[in-house]
Amino acid sequence: MAEISYSRGLAGVIADESKICTIDGEKGELYYYGYPIQTLAKESNYSEITFLLLYGHLPNSSELEGLERKLRAAREVPGALLDLIRGFPRDAHPMRGLQASTACLGMFDSVPGDASQDDQRELAIRLIGAYPTLIACIANHREGRDFVQPRSDLSHAANFLYMLQGKEPEEHVAKMFDVCLVLHAEHTFNASTFTGRVVGSTLADLHSAVAAAVGALSGSLHGGANERVLKMLENIGGLDNVNSWFENAMATKKKVMGMGHRVYKTIDPRAKILRAMLDGVAQATGEKKDLEVLGELADLMAKQMDETGKQIWPNVDYYSGSLYRLLGIDTIDFTPIFALSRVSGWTAHVLELWSDNRLYRPKCHYVGEKDLPYVPISQR
Amino acid sequence: MAEISYSRGLAGVIADESKICTIDGEKGELYYYGYPIQTLAKESNYSEITFLLLYGHLPNSSELEGLERKLRAAREVPGALLDLIRGFPRDAHPMRGLQASTACLGMFDSVPGDASQDDQRELAIRLIGAYPTLIACIANHREGRDFVQPRSDLSHAANFLYMLQGKEPEEHVAKMFDVCLVLHAEHTFNASTFTGRVVGSTLADLHSAVAAAVGALSGSLHGGANERVLKMLENIGGLDNVNSWFENAMATKKKVMGMGHRVYKTIDPRAKILRAMLDGVAQATGEKKDLEVLGELADLMAKQMDETGKQIWPNVDYYSGSLYRLLGIDTIDFTPIFALSRVSGWTAHVLELWSDNRLYRPKCHYVGEKDLPYVPISQR
Repeated sequence: MAEISYSRGLAGVIADESKICTIDGEKGELYYYGYPIQTLAKESNYSEITFLLLYGHLPNSSELEGLERKLRAAREVPGALLDLIRGFPRDAHPMRGLQASTACLGMFDSVPGDASQDDQRELAIRLIGAYPTLIACIANHREGRDFVQPRSDLSHAANFLYMLQGKEPEEHVAKMFDVCLVLHAEHTFNASTFTGRVVGSTLADLHSAVAAAVGALSGSLHGGANERVLKMLENIGGLDNVNSWFENAMATKKKVMGMGHRVYKTIDPRAKILRAMLDGVAQATGEKKDLEVLGELADLMAKQMDETGKQIWPNVDYYSGSLYRLLGIDTIDFTPIFALSRVSGWTAHVLELWSDNRLYRPKCHYVGEKDLPYVPISQR
Repeated sequence: MAEISYSRGLAGVIADESKICTIDGEKGELYYYGYPIQTLAKESNYSEITFLLLYGHLPNSSELEGLERKLRAAREVPGALLDLIRGFPRDAHPMRGLQASTACLGMFDSVPGDASQDDQRELAIRLIGAYPTLIACIANHREGRDFVQPRSDLSHAANFLYMLQGKEPEEHVAKMFDVCLVLHAEHTFNASTFTGRVVGSTLADLHSAVAAAVGALSGSLHGGANERVLKMLENIGGLDNVNSWFENAMATKKKVMGMGHRVYKTIDPRAKILRAMLDGVAQATGEKKDLEVLGELADLMAKQMDETGKQIWPNVDYYSGSLYRLLGIDTIDFTPIFALSRVSGWTAHVLELWSDNRLYRPKCHYVGEKDLPYVPISQR
């Protein structure tokens, strides 16, 4: 038999076409519907990005107002759903809780997989609007805190921090968090977005597809990298140890967390923006330890790159964990916060797929036995 | 720019290799780990198939006994999980309930995604053992019936029917249902199994991957085809109308449900086995209406094939719905029962993938805009 060649992990294989997002790895640029992320991070906000991803164009004032109204209304979720969350084991990882509660929410609010794009988009908006409530309630339940009622007078970002932390965030904190949500909203065919598309392609409903995507994001090879950056910072200990830690890491071929990406051949544009925000908070609060260690480590890595020619730049996860920590967020909530943002991208992809659906059904290359004789159990 | 060609839905694209299952479309044969399904349906049973799928070989007596003991022990699920199911909206589709309760079960019983194959296999066995309880409790909750305690003295199939129907099934009924579970346990890279592999490839935990697969199976393009066969039978009404219904269907290019498959170029071997069982029950009970209509319709389709040369044969869904109905099962529970069986295949695939894991990360062909100018909202 001739050897069959194929690409493991579908690496390099085009799975579909999309208008939603693209990356220019050479220039270090990321685009949502054609708009560069640097501009969006500076000029836009998460609600507008949600509109852009779901509708394919930037909203005018009345369109944005309409979306805002719907998102805010959706913060109130059914009491029976909150009771289900109260029944979750408190020691469960919040990503499990988020997968379960996403699936549960689909039992309270759904439209069929073959409904109109308009109906699906309204459902997506309600799901996105409910996500801050789900994620904050799961965190509060875990920590034994009372659930906090959502406030409809606050922005998406500010209301989430208010529900999570029990107090209204300062305006500049809410703004920074909003930028973080903008930065994480979409990133083309990663494993969770691809999962959402595969499930959506069966005409399963939107919540089933998003719950599946949450499952994929929970994997350590996908979400959770910023958590591992913080663990690395703990291991390093402080600025004095960076040199020796790095030398040891290179000698033992240990991975530097938050570095490297399949596509970017320069610094991830999101890392640049996050670094600037981290710098701002670090200067304002005097909490400069992480910033200094990360800066030194990035410099060492850059020197190493000059010597070896191997391109390994900071990615989005390199600075986000330290920033979240300075905003008072628990490490265990980092991946749910990734989902809080990415849910806009996931739903946008499923909606785009449904506008011209095709079931994903790849082939399997069989390498096992055939026509084995069945031996009765007494003779095995 | 040169036109980029790719295969939509990954049709014909090899996504990975596997030893678990293969189909010989020409011969009409399906193999689990090299054993033809016809032999397995005749000689084996669902517990043994579960062993085969998880371990890659048929068990000896003591191995099978060990697996049976574990599966039976896992029928008792945490009371707190049953309380969660009691909190589900009663009008929700059971596939949503199954996705939610699978994710919930993962909060009570889990091992990390990077644990040993042995630990993962034990977890898989506990999940498979719990599935009859979850599915029966979801159905009983929907119907307002009390939950039925599992019985450890009954087989996997008999205990499920006992929990679902509140009375011990007759032996020949339990046996037929067990054969149905054997027939549906595995079918290579369908959309739900592929989904489970994609989620598993991120090193998400097993329950997250299976919950995602349940989501995919819930889609109308994947599970639920036998439900649609029953609706078609309703529309036809009876034997007298088959001819005119079929003529009209051909004239209006209406799909005949339960017919056709991408791979089989002859009758699906599972359909043959199901037809024989349906025949047996129909003769014994005198309930021959479905059997007669399905037989007549298949004959008309065969004649049509002779004329057109287009191969469209009965598939696994053609006879299963009518058989389930004669076994007293509600139509709405057909797809959960598909999952009851397929959970062995799903977990087997995730375990196989993890033995040499690679993240699934295909490429996206971008067809959208680039470098759009950001116009302030007041000027849009």
